[in-house]
Amino acid sequence: MAVLCRPAVAVPEHVITVEQTLDLARRLHADHPQLPLVLRLISNTGVRKRHLIRPITETLEHPGFEERNRIYQQQAMQRVPAVVEQALANANLRPPEIDLIVYVSCTGFTMPSLTSWLINSMGFGYDTRQLPIAQLGCAAGGAAINRAHDFCTAYPDANALIIACEFCSLCYQPTDHDVGSLLSNGLFGDAVAAAVVRGRGGRGVRLERNASSLIPHTEEWISYHVKATGFHFRLDKRVPTTMQPLAPALRALAAEHQWEVSDLDFYVVHAGGPRILDDLTRYLGIPQHAFRHSRATLTEYGNIASAVVLDALLRLYEEDALLDGARGLIAGFGPGISAEMAVGSWCSTSPRHRVPRAAAPPAVARPLGGV
Amino acid sequence: MAVLCRPAVAVPEHVITVEQTLDLARRLHADHPQLPLVLRLISNTGVRKRHLIRPITETLEHPGFEERNRIYQQQAMQRVPAVVEQALANANLRPPEIDLIVYVSCTGFTMPSLTSWLINSMGFGYDTRQLPIAQLGCAAGGAAINRAHDFCTAYPDANALIIACEFCSLCYQPTDHDVGSLLSNGLFGDAVAAAVVRGRGGRGVRLERNASSLIPHTEEWISYHVKATGFHFRLDKRVPTTMQPLAPALRALAAEHQWEVSDLDFYVVHAGGPRILDDLTRYLGIPQHAFRHSRATLTEYGNIASAVVLDALLRLYEEDALLDGARGLIAGFGPGISAEMAVGSWCSTSPRHRVPRAAAPPAVARPLGGV
Repeated sequence: MAVLCRPAVAVPEHVITVEQTLDLARRLHADHPQLPLVLRLISNTGVRKRHLIRPITETLEHPGFEERNRIYQQQAMQRVPAVVEQALANANLRPPEIDLIVYVSCTGFTMPSLTSWLINSMGFGYDTRQLPIAQLGCAAGGAAINRAHDFCTAYPDANALIIACEFCSLCYQPTDHDVGSLLSNGLFGDAVAAAVVRGRGGRGVRLERNASSLIPHTEEWISYHVKATGFHFRLDKRVPTTMQPLAPALRALAAEHQWEVSDLDFYVVHAGGPRILDDLTRYLGIPQHAFRHSRATLTEYGNIASAVVLDALLRLYEEDALLDGARGLIAGFGPGISAEMAVGSWCSTSPRHRVPRAAAPPAVARPLGGV
Repeated sequence: MAVLCRPAVAVPEHVITVEQTLDLARRLHADHPQLPLVLRLISNTGVRKRHLIRPITETLEHPGFEERNRIYQQQAMQRVPAVVEQALANANLRPPEIDLIVYVSCTGFTMPSLTSWLINSMGFGYDTRQLPIAQLGCAAGGAAINRAHDFCTAYPDANALIIACEFCSLCYQPTDHDVGSLLSNGLFGDAVAAAVVRGRGGRGVRLERNASSLIPHTEEWISYHVKATGFHFRLDKRVPTTMQPLAPALRALAAEHQWEVSDLDFYVVHAGGPRILDDLTRYLGIPQHAFRHSRATLTEYGNIASAVVLDALLRLYEEDALLDGARGLIAGFGPGISAEMAVGSWCSTSPRHRVPRAAAPPAVARPLGGV
C-alpha cells in the first residue's frame, strides 16, 4: 500500500513582504488605470511574504529567456539536492532504493530533465525511471502524488520520489500589465519540495484512490503564452470561480471511497488564492479551519505552484495531531482547468516498525476512481 | 494484461528527398569548411525522404519562437485527432473508454498540454488522466508505452492512449552551423503517431516487463539549448557510440524475463541513425534484418523522434507475420542518454474474440524489471 511520507521543503533566502510588493506595484505602475484594483487584489491574497531565489532588484530585470533558463538550471542544481536528501531521510530510504523520480516544474524548461543530473550526482540507480512533467502547472503536485501512487500500485515493492521545483519569479514579465499579470506578480513565490511515496512501510498518508477532473472548455483560463521572452502566465478572471464545478468531483471521489467529503479528518489542497480556499470550504461544507495548512502556505510563501500541496502536507505532518486511520483529501488544481485529487488515511506505523515484507498483505489493484 | 494495440501514424504532405536535402546543404553552406563531412554524414543516414508540416521554403524561415509555437499548436490540433481516431478504432475502443492520455512531444511547448483540448474536443471523459511529457526527447515513445503499461498494471480494467506528436522541422535553427546541427537538419522529420494500451483484450504486443537505463554522465550529449529563438538541438558526436553501454541493459531486461536478447522474434527500437541500428545488431548478436521496421521508418520518414517506435511497430503489425506468443523487444533511446525498454509477446486474440472480462485471469503486479 503506497504511503506518502513526510515531505521536505526549502524556500530561498530572499524575502519580499506584502508591504514591499504593494510599494513596488505603486511605484512601477503609478499610471495604471486599474492600480487601485490591483493593490486591493494583492492585499486580499492573504500572502504576507514570499521567498525568492534572487534579490528583488535582480528579479525585476529580464535578462532574456536563455539567461533565465540558465539561472533556473543553476539554481535547481544548487537547491534541489538538499531537499531530496531530507525527503529520503524522512522516508528512511537511500537513493538506490528509489525506482521512479517524478520531477515536476513549470517555471523552467530543460532537456534532458534535471532527473538525469540527479541520478548522476546523487547516487540513484541508473535504472531509475524518470518522469519529468512540465505542462500541468500548479496541478502537477497532485499529479506527481497520483502517478507515484499508480506506480507503487503496479509495483508494490517500489518507491517513488516526487520533486516539485518552482521558481515562479523567473516567469516575471515586466512588460505584462494586465490585471491578471500584476496580481500574479504579487501572488507567486519560489520553493523546492520533495517527498517519497513508499510502496511498503512508511509513515504518513496511505494513498488509497485518486482521480483527475477537467472543467469543460476552460483550457484558456490558465495558460502560458510562449514567447521569445519566455513563459507569459495568463490568468483569466474567471479562475477564482472554478471551485464550484470542481467541488462535485472532490465529493464524487470521496463518495466512491464510501466517504462523505464534508466529514474527513484532514484536507490538503492547492492554495491558488484566497477565493479558491473560501469557495471550497463553502461548496464542500467544511469549516475554514480545515484548510489551515494550505492557508499557511499561501500566507507565508505565496502560491508556490506545484509545491503548495507538499508544503501544506508538511505542515499537516508537523502538526502531528492525526490518529491512525484518520481520513483525508489531497488536491492540486491547475491549468486545464484540472484537478488531481487523492483520498487516503493516516498511517502512523513507522518504517522501523512495519510488517516484514514477506508477511505484508498482497497489494490489490484497485478499480479506477473516476469522477 | 496490458496489450499495445496497432498504432496509427500520419506523416505530413510536404516531402523533401535526400537529394533535395543535399542540394540545400550545398547551397546554404557552400563556404562551410566541413561541408564534405556534412554531406557524407547526411548521405550515410539512410534517410531517403522526410515529410514536413510546411513547404521547405517556409520551413527554412525562422519566424520567431512565439510564431513557431503557435504553428506547433495549430498543426497539432489539425493533425492529431484523425490519428487518435484511427488508434482508437484499431483498439476497438471509443474515447470514453480511455482512462489515461500520455501525450509526448519535444518539439513544441504548450501549457496546458494538448491533452485538455483533446478531452474537450474528442469526447474523452472529463476524468481522463493527463500525462504530458516534453523532456524525454526521442526516448519518450518508449517511456509513453512503459508508463501506459504501468498504469494498466495498477488498474487492470483501464485503457491508456499514447500520442507522439513531433514536428522536428519547427526546431530548425538557421544560425546553427556546427556539424551536429547540420546533420540533424538532414535527419529529422515530422510525424504524428498514436496507439492504445488496453488493460484487457486487444491484439498486439502484450507488455510484460519494462525498464529504464541511463548511461552515466552523458546528460550533455543530447540536449536542448533553450534560447529566445526556441529549442536549439545539441547533438554530441559521441552519441552514435551509445549502443555499446546500452546493449547490456537490453540484454539484462530480457534475461530478467528468462529470455536471451539475441533470440527474440521481433525487435522495435528507436532509429536515431544508421550507426545506432548497426551497432545494436552487433552488440546484441542479431541479424541486420531484425531491425527492418526501424530501418524502414528511418529511410522513409527520417528520425521522427518519439514517434519512431510507434511507426516501426505499425510496420511490424502490417507485416502480420507473428505467431501467438512470439517474443520481442521495444526500446526508445534519447537524451540522458537514456533508454526506455520493454519486452512482451505477440497476442493475436482480437478484442472481438477475447475472453469475457469476468473470466479473465487476475492481473498480477510484476516485480520491477531493473537493469
